[in-house]
Amino acid sequence: MIKQRVKRLRNIMKEKNIYAYIIPSSDYHQSEYVGEYFKSREFVSGFTGSAGTVVITQDEAGLWTDGRYFIQAENELKNSGIKLFKIGEENVPTVEAYLIDSLPNNSILGFDGKVICAKEGQNLAKKLEFKNVSIEYNYDLVNNIWEDRCELPNKKAFLLGTEYTGASFSEKLVRVREAMKEKKATTHIITSLDDIAWLFNIRGGDVKSNPVVLCYAVITIDNVYLFVDESKLNNEIKNQLNKEKVKIKPYDEVYEFVKDMNEDEVVLLDPAKVNYAIYNNIPKNIQKIENTNPTIMFKAIKNKVELKSIRNSHIKDGVAFTKFMYWLKTNVGKMDITELSATQKLEDLRREQDKFIEPSFGTIAAYREHAAMMHYSATEESNYTLEPRDLFLVDSGGQYYDGTTDITRTIALGSISEEVQMHFTNVVRGMIRLSMAKFLHGCRGYNLDILARGPLWDLGIDYKCGTGHGIGFVLNVHEAPNGFRWRVVADRDDSCVLEEGMVTTNEPGVYVEGSHGIRIENELVVKKAEKNEYGQFMDFEVVTFAPIDVDAIDGSLLLQNEKDYLNNYHKEVYNKISPFLNDDEKEWLKEYTREI
Amino acid sequence: MIKQRVKRLRNIMKEKNIYAYIIPSSDYHQSEYVGEYFKSREFVSGFTGSAGTVVITQDEAGLWTDGRYFIQAENELKNSGIKLFKIGEENVPTVEAYLIDSLPNNSILGFDGKVICAKEGQNLAKKLEFKNVSIEYNYDLVNNIWEDRCELPNKKAFLLGTEYTGASFSEKLVRVREAMKEKKATTHIITSLDDIAWLFNIRGGDVKSNPVVLCYAVITIDNVYLFVDESKLNNEIKNQLNKEKVKIKPYDEVYEFVKDMNEDEVVLLDPAKVNYAIYNNIPKNIQKIENTNPTIMFKAIKNKVELKSIRNSHIKDGVAFTKFMYWLKTNVGKMDITELSATQKLEDLRREQDKFIEPSFGTIAAYREHAAMMHYSATEESNYTLEPRDLFLVDSGGQYYDGTTDITRTIALGSISEEVQMHFTNVVRGMIRLSMAKFLHGCRGYNLDILARGPLWDLGIDYKCGTGHGIGFVLNVHEAPNGFRWRVVADRDDSCVLEEGMVTTNEPGVYVEGSHGIRIENELVVKKAEKNEYGQFMDFEVVTFAPIDVDAIDGSLLLQNEKDYLNNYHKEVYNKISPFLNDDEKEWLKEYTREI
Repeated sequence: MIKQRVKRLRNIMKEKNIYAYIIPSSDYHQSEYVGEYFKSREFVSGFTGSAGTVVITQDEAGLWTDGRYFIQAENELKNSGIKLFKIGEENVPTVEAYLIDSLPNNSILGFDGKVICAKEGQNLAKKLEFKNVSIEYNYDLVNNIWEDRCELPNKKAFLLGTEYTGASFSEKLVRVREAMKEKKATTHIITSLDDIAWLFNIRGGDVKSNPVVLCYAVITIDNVYLFVDESKLNNEIKNQLNKEKVKIKPYDEVYEFVKDMNEDEVVLLDPAKVNYAIYNNIPKNIQKIENTNPTIMFKAIKNKVELKSIRNSHIKDGVAFTKFMYWLKTNVGKMDITELSATQKLEDLRREQDKFIEPSFGTIAAYREHAAMMHYSATEESNYTLEPRDLFLVDSGGQYYDGTTDITRTIALGSISEEVQMHFTNVVRGMIRLSMAKFLHGCRGYNLDILARGPLWDLGIDYKCGTGHGIGFVLNVHEAPNGFRWRVVADRDDSCVLEEGMVTTNEPGVYVEGSHGIRIENELVVKKAEKNEYGQFMDFEVVTFAPIDVDAIDGSLLLQNEKDYLNNYHKEVYNKISPFLNDDEKEWLKEYTREI
Repeated sequence: MIKQRVKRLRNIMKEKNIYAYIIPSSDYHQSEYVGEYFKSREFVSGFTGSAGTVVITQDEAGLWTDGRYFIQAENELKNSGIKLFKIGEENVPTVEAYLIDSLPNNSILGFDGKVICAKEGQNLAKKLEFKNVSIEYNYDLVNNIWEDRCELPNKKAFLLGTEYTGASFSEKLVRVREAMKEKKATTHIITSLDDIAWLFNIRGGDVKSNPVVLCYAVITIDNVYLFVDESKLNNEIKNQLNKEKVKIKPYDEVYEFVKDMNEDEVVLLDPAKVNYAIYNNIPKNIQKIENTNPTIMFKAIKNKVELKSIRNSHIKDGVAFTKFMYWLKTNVGKMDITELSATQKLEDLRREQDKFIEPSFGTIAAYREHAAMMHYSATEESNYTLEPRDLFLVDSGGQYYDGTTDITRTIALGSISEEVQMHFTNVVRGMIRLSMAKFLHGCRGYNLDILARGPLWDLGIDYKCGTGHGIGFVLNVHEAPNGFRWRVVADRDDSCVLEEGMVTTNEPGVYVEGSHGIRIENELVVKKAEKNEYGQFMDFEVVTFAPIDVDAIDGSLLLQNEKDYLNNYHKEVYNKISPFLNDDEKEWLKEYTREI
C-alpha cells in the first residue's frame, strides 16, 4: 500500500517535473502534533511517530527521524521501500545535505509551502542556489492521492477564565503591543497555535491532546485580526473579542490578507513559525523584523495564578496515578491486564478527577522490551498482557482546566534482574540530581543536563534525547523555549535561560533494545532562591507527586544526599496524595513511600 | 602621578580632536600577557592586573576589568580619578555601551590600531555609525607621554626539537596548507604569537613566562614569510627556516607587506587575532576568509609525544611542589617565611628540576585575606609573614622544555575555622567531581562546569570566573579554545568541543573578601573512553600530582565516591612523587596522602 502511494506520488512529480518532494510532519502552523487532516507524512510512509520527514525522488524515498523513534521507524518502514535515515548518527546526511547531494542542476524541489516554515524553505532555496534549483511550493501533492482524507477539524473553542490564566486577553494584548513597539514593529503575524491560544485565552479541540484552535492572528497597533472558522466560537469568546474590536475573518483568508498589506507596515514575525507561503505572500518591499514571537517568553513564564493551578492539577493527577499504581501492583497476575487496558484504566482514573478534559498526549504504556521504544504506542496487534514480573513503563498526562501534566513511572510488576535494578536506580539518581540543582540565574538547560545524565554516562549508557521539555499551561505538552538538553540543537528552541516560573520535565531513562526501557519523569518549576553578592540563585520546585517504585531501587547504589532526597520526596508524596485515597490505597501508599 | 598622565593624554586628545581614547591590555598580537613595552594601560591607570581596558574622555576616565580583579583594581585605582567598571555586574555598561552612550555625534574615537583586533575595531565603527563617529587608529598616544618607555623586547629564540613537539615545522606546514586549501585560501596571515611558535617549533623570551617570539607570519601556498627581528634567531632556527625557504623580513614590515598583496589572493585570517591596522592595510578588493586559525585546533590537541612530555614535566613539578609543601608545613612558625620568600623557595625548588626554564606565570602566593584576590601578586609593601594558622594559597607553574604546568594548592598553616574547612572541603568536592566526569564526545566546557561549581552553588557561593582554561605546551599558560565555564562569553574562545588530547585546568575556588581564599587546581587531559552504540565516551586523565591538604578537609562532608576518588588520588601521588624525595619528605608525604 505504501509502495503504491509512493509510486502514485512519483507519477505526479514526473508530470510536474518535480525532482524531489518533501513531506514534513507539520500542519500550517508548525505544530509538533497535528490533526488527522495534516498527517500526510504518515499517510505516505506508514510511520506513525510524531516527528519525521519524508523525501521522495524517482530513485529513492527516505524517512528522517530522531533517536526516540529509531526502533519504531525500523519496524513501521519494513517492506515500504522507504529508507530510514537516523538523525544524529554518524555518516547519516541531514535532509538538507541529502538534497544538496542528490538534486541535479536546474531541477525543481517541491513541497507544500503551508507545511514548511519560512526559515527552512528559504534556507533550502539558498543552499540549492548554486545548482540553480527552483522551489515549487504551491502544490499539496499528497492531497491528490489521499482520496479519503478527512475534513479540517472544526471542534468548538472555549474561553479559559482569568481564574486559571491569571491575566485577561486585554492585559496580554497590551504586553504584546509593548513588545512590538520596542522592536519598532507596526504589525505582528502570529501563526503558532499555542501562542494564539495563550494570547486570546481560548482553547479548543482541533488537535488531539493539544487544546488549540486552528487560526492565524495579525496584531497591529490599532487592530486585531483573527483568521478562524467562526462557527467554532461561542458567545463568551465573541463577547471578549468584541471588547477588543477583534475582526474575525475566514481561516484561509490570511494568505490573501498579507498580500494586501500597506507598504509602510513593519512586520514582526518569526520565520521559524510562519510558513513559507505566508512569508512569500507578503509584498517584498515591506520591512520585516525577524524575531521570535514575544508571546513565547510570556507564555513560558507561568504567572502566580497559573502556578497555583498547576500545583493543584498535579495533585489530582498524582492521585489518579497513585490509584492506578496501587491497582496495577495489587492486581497484576490476578486479572487480565494488558498495555491497552491499563491505559484505559489510567484514563478512567484521571476522568474521575475534577476539571479533567482529555489526556495531554497518547499514553505510552509499554511492557518489557516495548519500553525500549521511547514513544511506543500500543496497538491491538502489539498489545502485551502484563505478567507479575519485569518492568512496565507508563508515560502519560492529563489536560485539566487548571493545568497540563506529564508524568512517567516505570513499575516493577515482579522480580527484575540485578542489571535492570542497577539501571533503574541510576535513572532515579539522575532524576534526583537534576531536581536538587541549585544554580545561578543565567543557566540554561545545557548547563544542568549532565546532572541527570551523569549517572548513566558513568555506566557508558546514554538516552538519545533531551532530558526534559517545557510544558504548556492547558496547552501543548511540549512547549518552547526551555528544556534540558546537553547539545544545542539548532531546530529545537529549548535552550533559553531558565527563568522563574518556567515548567520543565525531568525525565532521564535507559533504553535497551529488545530488553527493557526505564524512564522516571517529574515536572520542575524554576524558582528564585537567595540573591546575594554572587548573583541570583535559582532552584526547582517539584510539582509531580506519585511514588517512584522502591521495589526496583537498589538503595546501596544511592549516594547519601540522593537517598535523603528520595525519602523526603516520598514523605511529601504521602502527605499530599493520601488524603484522597481509600484506606487500602492509603496503606499501600504508606508502604510504597517507605524510607530506603 | 596617574592623574598627571591622564591629564597629559587629555591634552593631546584635545589637540587631535579625539573625544574618547581606548587603551586596552594587548600588544600587537592580541596576547593575553604582554611584554613591558606594551603595558600602556598599566602605565596610564596604575592597574597591574592582566586584563582591563581604559577609556578616557575629557570628563571621565574608566577602567573595565573582570571578577578576578575587582578587589585588586579597587585598591590600585584609589585616588587615581579613574572609575572602576566591574564587567558582568548588574547595571554596569560594557565599554561598547559606554562609548555608544557618551560619544557625541560626529566625534572621533581614537585608539592605536595595532593593539585592538580587527573584529573589535570594526564592531565599534559599525555600532557608532549612527552617530557618524569616525575612528582614528594611527596614533599610539601613550607613547607621547611615556618618556622612559623601554625598547621592544629582543630575547634570543630557540628551537624546540621534535623529541618534545612530536612533529616538525615541515609536517605542521603541510597541515596548515591543507587547511588553507580546504577553505580555498591562498594566503594565511598569522599574528598570534603562540600559533606561530607552535607552527615553527620556535620558542623565545619576548613575553615573561610565555616563551614566544615577537613576530608575524604570512603563509602562502608556495612561500612562507616570517616578520621578526633576525638577530633573535640562532643558526639552528635559520637552518630549519632555510629548509622550507622561509623569507625573513623585519618585524614591522608586515604593515607595508600586506598593502602590496596581489589582488588575486584569497586571505585567510582571524579578525579576532589580526589587529585593526593590519586588517585595514590589506587592499579592500582582496577577498578575505574570516575564520579561526587552523593552528588553534592543531595546537590545542596535544599529540602523543607532547602528552608524554607533559606527564613527565608534571611529575617534576609535583616533586618541587611537594618538597615546598613539606618545607612550609614543617617550618612555618619556626622560621621567618613571607609570601615573597615562599615564592622564591618554590621557584628555587622548581629550578632544581630537569629542563626548567622559568615560572609559567607570576606566582600567586597569598596568605589569609590576600587569597580572596584571585590574581593577587605579593609586593614588598603587601608582603605578609606566614604564621602557623589560617590558609595560604599558592598558584604557580613552570615552563620546562617538556611542558608547561599550572597548579594551585591551598595549605592550612595551622588551625582554621569550621566555616573555612567547610568551604575548603566543598572546593575539593567540586574539583573531584569534574575530574571524575565521563561524558559523550561533543560535550563542551559549559556542559561540565556545574560538576565543579555545584557543591559551592549549593551553599549559595560562586567564584566569579571560569573553572578552568586550556594550557599550552611550552607555551601560554592560558590557551584557547578549550575551557570550563558555564556561560558562553563571546570574547573568550573557550567553549569548543572537548577533544582527545586537550589539556585544561580544573580550579574551583571560594573567595571571601577580607577573609580568605581557597583554590585547588589540577590539570586534566581529555581521553577517549569506550565507544559503543551510544557514541564515543570521553573522560579525563589527571596529570597534576601533589597532596591536597587533608588537614583542611572535613571528611564527613564528602560523598562516598568523592572520598574514594580522593584516597585513590593520594595513593597515586605517593607512588609517583615519593621516589624523588628524601626520607623525611617521604615520611611526611605518607602522612599527607593518608586515607580519610
